Amino acid sequence: MKNYKVILAYKGTAYHGFQRQSNANTIQQEVEEALGRLLGENVTIYGCSRTDAGVHAREFCFNFHTENPIPVKGLLFGCNAQLPDDIALLSAEQAPDDFHARFCAKGKEYEYIVHNSAVKNPFYSDSAYRTARHIDEKMLDSEAKAFVGEHDFRAFCSADCTKENTTRIISRFDVRREGELVIFTVAGNGFLYNMVRIMVGTLLTISEGKLPCGCIPSLLESRDRTLAGRTAPPQGLYLNRVFYAEGEYMQSEHSAP
Amino acid sequence: MKNYKVILAYKGTAYHGFQRQSNANTIQQEVEEALGRLLGENVTIYGCSRTDAGVHAREFCFNFHTENPIPVKGLLFGCNAQLPDDIALLSAEQAPDDFHARFCAKGKEYEYIVHNSAVKNPFYSDSAYRTARHIDEKMLDSEAKAFVGEHDFRAFCSADCTKENTTRIISRFDVRREGELVIFTVAGNGFLYNMVRIMVGTLLTISEGKLPCGCIPSLLESRDRTLAGRTAPPQGLYLNRVFYAEGEYMQSEHSAP
Repeated sequence: MKNYKVILAYKGTAYHGFQRQSNANTIQQEVEEALGRLLGENVTIYGCSRTDAGVHAREFCFNFHTENPIPVKGLLFGCNAQLPDDIALLSAEQAPDDFHARFCAKGKEYEYIVHNSAVKNPFYSDSAYRTARHIDEKMLDSEAKAFVGEHDFRAFCSADCTKENTTRIISRFDVRREGELVIFTVAGNGFLYNMVRIMVGTLLTISEGKLPCGCIPSLLESRDRTLAGRTAPPQGLYLNRVFYAEGEYMQSEHSAP
Repeated sequence: MKNYKVILAYKGTAYHGFQRQSNANTIQQEVEEALGRLLGENVTIYGCSRTDAGVHAREFCFNFHTENPIPVKGLLFGCNAQLPDDIALLSAEQAPDDFHARFCAKGKEYEYIVHNSAVKNPFYSDSAYRTARHIDEKMLDSEAKAFVGEHDFRAFCSADCTKENTTRIISRFDVRREGELVIFTVAGNGFLYNMVRIMVGTLLTISEGKLPCGCIPSLLESRDRTLAGRTAPPQGLYLNRVFYAEGEYMQSEHSAP
């Protein structure tokens, strides 16, 4: 039995997230069906995380097991030919038997893209979140640094979050501008449900003057979701990559994929 | 009665082209319905051209008449709020009574984007045409220059084309590379049905070695559609802008929108 580690990219617009659901179209279902048709067997894939409906991934990771002797190149081209245009396998390699894309993940890097313009741009409608009011990206970059370090992120996860331990380490939180786009990049050892979207939503709330500058440390201390800002919508969020080497997420840099 | 000249951008993926059809969703129908709801009257818009299903526009132009005294800003923001995310009005201005977006057009500029990669990229799937075989963009830039000038383009329009006069002036045809993207930019005083897609398809056929370098002058002379290359698919094509000043298309430059 071989265990394959596979890197996957997808545009999430048309899907109800990664994880298979009985009544909705998901990335997992598309990939399992494509691999199943290629290999002639039932395939179960194990994803590095769930992603919400409409969220994208540049380098998602999953693993799966097969007895099929298909070479890696055949696996990639064969599966890509079966997949819809908005999902693609980027690479695959054999992994140790005990590799599991979710349980072995040591960290992740996300990006959130805001289209900062009073005018709609049809070419960004499903790949960025538009907000008209001007964003001072240098101010937000400075505010975002309050998230860096080891903190209890209870106030920055969905009320639906069932995790006992809500302490995580954020190694990087940068905000920069590229023309009309404001790009938030955050890396850390783990993320709670909706955590990136609530952190970005809180920064946008600060930018709009509805929360004061310097409020993030006290929001973290409060552990109260209702005091933090809104949840930024899904279409701006990208899972950039997953780290499997110990401490690798600490080296997340601007040279992201 | 005011006559408005309006600039429109749209991502054509979800639409059956610009022009209203009885049984399919089109850009014209969406815009007419949005304007109709805003102005409380039946609105007919006159587009600068048809575009095919899946083709995009960065600066399409249309005009329409109304008695409504709504200010231009209200027109823009009101209509954009009614339009789906993949269609946006960019600007509007009052035009002379006899301005007609199609009949007054003196030229147009198009762009065609090829994603030149062996690997699918889900983020380009509906905004570029992917081809795996390496493109020598300098060679194609040189080949494309054979289209520049006044020629009979009968061999480069769809067999469905009903135009008597198939002579057009092409003022510019450039091919350049930006990473994995190869970008074709063409401007001229008018374009026949499918003409840009057939010219690009012919250049790609030359790139693949299935037509010889230097063949374009004899293809033009042949006036025979069956001798030219294939029609490149719609998702790579963008109407960049429309020129209304005499000779303006001659000045089309790399500073396209």
